[in-house]
Amino acid sequence: MSIPKQTAFTAAEFRRRQDEVRRRAQGLGLDALLLSLPSSIVYLTGYTGMSGYVPQVLLLRCDTTDDPTLWMRLQDRPGALHLTHLADDLVVGYPEAFVGHPDQDGHDYILRQIGSALLPLRVGLEFDALSHAALRKWQARLPVRELVDAAGIVDGVRIVKSNAEVAVMREAAAIADAAMGAATAAIHEGARECDVAALVAAAAVRGLPDCGSTHLEVPLICSTPRTGTPHICWTEDRYRQGTQVNVELGGTRHRYSAGLMRTFHIGPPPDRLKRLHEAELVATDAALAAARPGARCNDVAGAFCRALEQHGFRKDSRCGYAIGIDWIEPAASLSLHDRTELQPGMTFHLMLGNWISEDFGYVLSETILITPHGVEALTRTPRKLFIH
Amino acid sequence: MSIPKQTAFTAAEFRRRQDEVRRRAQGLGLDALLLSLPSSIVYLTGYTGMSGYVPQVLLLRCDTTDDPTLWMRLQDRPGALHLTHLADDLVVGYPEAFVGHPDQDGHDYILRQIGSALLPLRVGLEFDALSHAALRKWQARLPVRELVDAAGIVDGVRIVKSNAEVAVMREAAAIADAAMGAATAAIHEGARECDVAALVAAAAVRGLPDCGSTHLEVPLICSTPRTGTPHICWTEDRYRQGTQVNVELGGTRHRYSAGLMRTFHIGPPPDRLKRLHEAELVATDAALAAARPGARCNDVAGAFCRALEQHGFRKDSRCGYAIGIDWIEPAASLSLHDRTELQPGMTFHLMLGNWISEDFGYVLSETILITPHGVEALTRTPRKLFIH
Repeated sequence: MSIPKQTAFTAAEFRRRQDEVRRRAQGLGLDALLLSLPSSIVYLTGYTGMSGYVPQVLLLRCDTTDDPTLWMRLQDRPGALHLTHLADDLVVGYPEAFVGHPDQDGHDYILRQIGSALLPLRVGLEFDALSHAALRKWQARLPVRELVDAAGIVDGVRIVKSNAEVAVMREAAAIADAAMGAATAAIHEGARECDVAALVAAAAVRGLPDCGSTHLEVPLICSTPRTGTPHICWTEDRYRQGTQVNVELGGTRHRYSAGLMRTFHIGPPPDRLKRLHEAELVATDAALAAARPGARCNDVAGAFCRALEQHGFRKDSRCGYAIGIDWIEPAASLSLHDRTELQPGMTFHLMLGNWISEDFGYVLSETILITPHGVEALTRTPRKLFIH
Repeated sequence: MSIPKQTAFTAAEFRRRQDEVRRRAQGLGLDALLLSLPSSIVYLTGYTGMSGYVPQVLLLRCDTTDDPTLWMRLQDRPGALHLTHLADDLVVGYPEAFVGHPDQDGHDYILRQIGSALLPLRVGLEFDALSHAALRKWQARLPVRELVDAAGIVDGVRIVKSNAEVAVMREAAAIADAAMGAATAAIHEGARECDVAALVAAAAVRGLPDCGSTHLEVPLICSTPRTGTPHICWTEDRYRQGTQVNVELGGTRHRYSAGLMRTFHIGPPPDRLKRLHEAELVATDAALAAARPGARCNDVAGAFCRALEQHGFRKDSRCGYAIGIDWIEPAASLSLHDRTELQPGMTFHLMLGNWISEDFGYVLSETILITPHGVEALTRTPRKLFIH
């Protein structure tokens, strides 16, 4: 018996996305795309299952407006039928003999199924979604006119969000705010760091009464003496007077994430931290003032860095990146090197974390939306240094 | 100012691991390894930071017993110095100009740093840890006698855990049991699925009073009508009488994970579910009886499948996989195709989830340790169908 569908967006929304990707691909002279990045599959079909550790391929032809075909492990097929608008015959499962087998995997099955159906076409394949061995299979055994790297084609479309996607990003941002509220309640002298992380994770999963989360981006919580390093995991250490806590968390809704970072201090903060926080606030305002349609990514980064330097600090790392499906969208960075033009509907994690020395760093971020006339912060947590 | 070290294992433990990897590499005629899989870096150094989305390379030479050198993003260097025994000069950071830049990345920096230092050597590189573009850089620009794929070398060593690693796996298993206890308390009629997921995630992060977690494997919770699909995320649906809940969760300690799966039913379970559960229990006993040093992975899978078939059911998917650092270790599967010999110290997620039709599946698993004389389940949750 099949189970009812439960989709996050309308069929028309996915058709619009598919058509825009087709247009972009055709502009590059491509007749079809073979997509394996989980984010590409989420974007074009709505399948958000965590099954991308085995081969999955979405075939989107550009010479028709037919729905794409999704090949995946047979056991994941019911989930795809449930979460997407795809018809029964467009989700094809490969049997378990192709999983955990030393001599064959799903790519062998999919290659055999496609056969010579794409023979006269110029086909784009997401090379970087594939292992070295898988890519070699496709290059050696797929009969096509030409097989080229499709890197960036879907990314280049999904960087601009539709109204429906922005609505979901707003929900993700509200969940992020709720999770930061949980951090605010949890951080106190005597708390174990893992207990704080537990309450933050729970709030991010729970979401809001009318809008639960549907996935979790694992929070990063780095506290004294680890405020100078951004990516390490929480510990069991107990907080005490003088502990600084850097919190990076996300809210996730239908696999769209909004990021949020704030800095906490237990007891009176040292002068250096207060001065850095004040400088970051001014520089954040400068970045937000620079973010509008027609400006470029490097304008935003430049405005932030100049204002921060006027206050005696420097930030070497980029000021953020596109965010949406999964955390970091590769299409654009808010960096001095990136001249991508901002467009309404783009969303960024304006990430102003600043790791100044081995033992000192500070974090602050917002998830922002480029609007027709400027910018809007989707996250709403007060932009302050939280003193506990 | 540098921050004090906080390492999960002794320096001697890491030296032992490095020596075993060297031996294996030398057996394959290799003089040095360039490792980029996050799991390889965790295994050989203890660096568990979540920074592997930008280039990281560990150079382990086989012709000396010197500690390896780790190249990474400069901002992640303090975290690596904190979490590993590596000396200051053996962790090398590349500047931010190599991050989010359209024309260069960390690989360019690392290649330049290594220069011709490996010129006369036969070097193994983990091809599948690299993107297509990164692999081409290394193949084109690293001057060596020969550059070959190092796939599986570290995996082949880390599949057998030391006593110190088993001790950490036991802690991870105890955390998994605690999280399943939270699921047991949370699942009831009227609960939102995301609220159940929140309590499970919180328990997995919190860990135990004397042993907190240090990371989270995001739980998978699939409930009616989604019991027939294994990998999709939780929803906001409310549970009601007749809802079945399949819970897959993990405990994680110093990046070692233990997996655990149990099936819940709200109200009296249907006959089909009861019969499948009874059959799975008998078949699990058969699998455990077959798991001992000298037996092979396919013996365990065969024992399970035969017993299950005698009770009128079939499981098509593998019966589990090696588990340890990160969830699925690729070195061995408990499948009918895998003839890997079991050795004391190997740990597996004996994963007996069975997705029978689109609308019906069942889960049961244990994290197990191969002991000198047989097998031990590290997870201790009662092996029952939980009826609420």
